[in-house]
Amino acid sequence: MTLAVRYTSARTLDTAPAAGSEPGPGEVELAPAYVGICGTDLHIFHGDMDARVATPAVLGHEMAGRIVRVGPGVEGWRPGDAVTVMPLRWDGTCPACRAGHQHICQHLDFIGIDSPGAMQQRWTVPASTLIRLPATLPLDRAALVEPTAVAVHDVGRAAVKSGEKVVVVGGGPVGILIALVARASGAEVRVVELNAHRRLLAEELGLSTWDPAAADITELVRQWTGEAGADVAFEVSGAAGGVDTAVDALGVRGRLCLVAIHPRPREINLHRFFWRELTLVGARLYDRGDFERAVDLVADGTIPAQRLITKIVPMTEAPAAFEALESGGDVMKILVDCTDEAQGAAV
Amino acid sequence: MTLAVRYTSARTLDTAPAAGSEPGPGEVELAPAYVGICGTDLHIFHGDMDARVATPAVLGHEMAGRIVRVGPGVEGWRPGDAVTVMPLRWDGTCPACRAGHQHICQHLDFIGIDSPGAMQQRWTVPASTLIRLPATLPLDRAALVEPTAVAVHDVGRAAVKSGEKVVVVGGGPVGILIALVARASGAEVRVVELNAHRRLLAEELGLSTWDPAAADITELVRQWTGEAGADVAFEVSGAAGGVDTAVDALGVRGRLCLVAIHPRPREINLHRFFWRELTLVGARLYDRGDFERAVDLVADGTIPAQRLITKIVPMTEAPAAFEALESGGDVMKILVDCTDEAQGAAV
Repeated sequence: MTLAVRYTSARTLDTAPAAGSEPGPGEVELAPAYVGICGTDLHIFHGDMDARVATPAVLGHEMAGRIVRVGPGVEGWRPGDAVTVMPLRWDGTCPACRAGHQHICQHLDFIGIDSPGAMQQRWTVPASTLIRLPATLPLDRAALVEPTAVAVHDVGRAAVKSGEKVVVVGGGPVGILIALVARASGAEVRVVELNAHRRLLAEELGLSTWDPAAADITELVRQWTGEAGADVAFEVSGAAGGVDTAVDALGVRGRLCLVAIHPRPREINLHRFFWRELTLVGARLYDRGDFERAVDLVADGTIPAQRLITKIVPMTEAPAAFEALESGGDVMKILVDCTDEAQGAAV
Repeated sequence: MTLAVRYTSARTLDTAPAAGSEPGPGEVELAPAYVGICGTDLHIFHGDMDARVATPAVLGHEMAGRIVRVGPGVEGWRPGDAVTVMPLRWDGTCPACRAGHQHICQHLDFIGIDSPGAMQQRWTVPASTLIRLPATLPLDRAALVEPTAVAVHDVGRAAVKSGEKVVVVGGGPVGILIALVARASGAEVRVVELNAHRRLLAEELGLSTWDPAAADITELVRQWTGEAGADVAFEVSGAAGGVDTAVDALGVRGRLCLVAIHPRPREINLHRFFWRELTLVGARLYDRGDFERAVDLVADGTIPAQRLITKIVPMTEAPAAFEALESGGDVMKILVDCTDEAQGAAV
């Protein structure tokens, strides 16, 4: 019997035995090694997504691991291969899919939310979701590929170009990854973040940061851009004030990429959108191209993944890790170690 | 002495003698023939723009007329030429201008708001603002070129393509013009409008309309698009409900072009922007290319300008016309006749 970390009800996780399932046609069984805890997992933990999540629910969609068993008809993969998973299943028939936007399929199955996720010792998924990892890439770092794919997608949606000035509002894991990917695209980047620990980490990664509690961001942008305003802003904070900061930062024809989830409507300064001909772009998830680019960026060190990992905990400590992340303290990314070795006698 | 229609204070217009001014170097003196009353003129009339408008202010920026006198150094123009005016003066040095977006210059002089407008018998403007009109185009119809240029710009900002499904929320003059320009681009168009008179006029122009008081627009869009949602929506109503209607109408990767002016922040369903990867595009004014295309569309009858002109009034009746438009009744476009002939003994 293997273990799984399960969400059972608001603010409650448990660790329970899970029966592995024989991989069916077109499926593979994986042994997840490391699984990151994502902001969406925290939303579920809060109970905010109970209408969507069937309990008990195995969470987790940021992972790296190895193939254990290969189901009938699966070609090109074999046990032992190092992989990550693009955790999307689409119907292929809805208008979004037919338009080529499968990642926003109108009936998307997001694996780890709508169906069981990776925070378990054995995980069966369609082989079509697999993304190959370089043999030399440590699996803990590779667990950062999924959020890096988010960042690649976001930077692509905002069409960031070399030489542009970019403001990232919110310096959590996704904000930092966006800043790093935008920098790799040749942009000049500033990260706006309230938390001193996160600012320090960003600075250690060579990113310039601004503390919105200590200075007027609009004025800093004005000085930085010589009155022009920024070319691109990313709203990654999820806060109403973050939206205003991002809108105010932009110069004429500036693009605001909306990354954070705002469950409730927000007041937006539409007059500024008119006056400066701004563009707001929604961004969600990623496609295979984003994922493959993310593998490259993590593997070549453009994304210094190991620097973003605050700590790695065994499955039994996952509930405490969720609590720590929720408190918003001095943590960036926490990985859950799902390897058989880490569970010791539990296997 | 000639006459001018002037805004003097909230809800007050007068008709007063105006001294013509000798055209200086690079300038021309025009005799405006017909001047349209625009929504922005109504905003000024309400007193909403008193912080920007220096009184007494001669209003009017939708015009057609003829050159009377040509100032020193002006080449290519001569008295009698039929012209309209692109009423923009930019500084050429601000970041917006340097980026090639002169129409949203950070120090834009919009002629008719920031400096004296066309609602007078003689009007001196820089020759650089002139747009030539075909000799065969009646000047009353040509007064619709400026709002048509707005529509051309909006349809361009939304990047409407042939075969796309487009919802225009708001069927006033600009909404109808957008619908006509989008249709000329090959789009299928629906106009959402509360006012029965405006819907009737739109239908007479071959546009399909929906009454939001009589039906659930979201459901109509769903049926019309086979669950997909619209490709493009234009928000031309200025109402909070109009923004919601436009956002709800869009399918995945849909584009919302923001045309109406929303002076105060509006609540926006940002979750929908995330979920469907929508884009919001602000659009303001036009450039010379938009204006020249607008001349073509009015001249070739694609824009049946004469059908949009509800009536033409002499300058002395302009105050009553503003009142009629403000009441929002069964009017579309009203032109003020500024010809010397119409003023009779006043010249």
